[in-house]
Amino acid sequence: MTSLGRHLLIDYHGCDRELITDTAFVRKVLLEAATRAGATIVTDVFHTFNPHGVSGVVVIAESHLAVHTWPEHGSVAVDVFSCGTKMRPEVIEAFLKDVFRAKTSFVRELERGSAPC
Amino acid sequence: MTSLGRHLLIDYHGCDRELITDTAFVRKVLLEAATRAGATIVTDVFHTFNPHGVSGVVVIAESHLAVHTWPEHGSVAVDVFSCGTKMRPEVIEAFLKDVFRAKTSFVRELERGSAPC
Repeated sequence: MTSLGRHLLIDYHGCDRELITDTAFVRKVLLEAATRAGATIVTDVFHTFNPHGVSGVVVIAESHLAVHTWPEHGSVAVDVFSCGTKMRPEVIEAFLKDVFRAKTSFVRELERGSAPC
Repeated sequence: MTSLGRHLLIDYHGCDRELITDTAFVRKVLLEAATRAGATIVTDVFHTFNPHGVSGVVVIAESHLAVHTWPEHGSVAVDVFSCGTKMRPEVIEAFLKDVFRAKTSFVRELERGSAPC
């Protein structure tokens, strides 16, 4: 069957630990990433963990973006789940690598909604 | 390096189309799935699309659950991203298959936060 969505799973390492501790910053750049990719933002929710770490989700008309940061490891995980052909999710990986000042990124792409072969 | 999280990607097909159109129902069962898996719920956001379809996210202390439904295809995609050893994300797949009355489910599990080999 036809795939219903594309799912990019991105893991960043060697990020700036102060930046990825800052919930307002992480929210700002995730919203900007969604806009750069051509997504239509519906709503968002971000949470700051104690002692540190940020989790956030941006619900978009095309599905969602999610982020989790681990300042103690300098690591960030980002998911970009998108439906339709309007969005360009691939622009997000390089943009966030730059703003998080990540040394490396590891990207996987999966089809969603498709049955096993 | 050690993995920072487990990510279950579940795709259901042949679901009850009325049930997966009902945002209140989808929210209720996602919250129950989180509780059954031993997660600590932080907040949630659900959105109903026009003409139909539901997107929702439950932010948990252990990371997040996300759901997207396509009533026109009878399909549902669920993500369970969890950190730590307290949660039992594997109980979610069977529970949601039952409540969505899915004919089939397709599960993939990925490690997150780990670098490429």
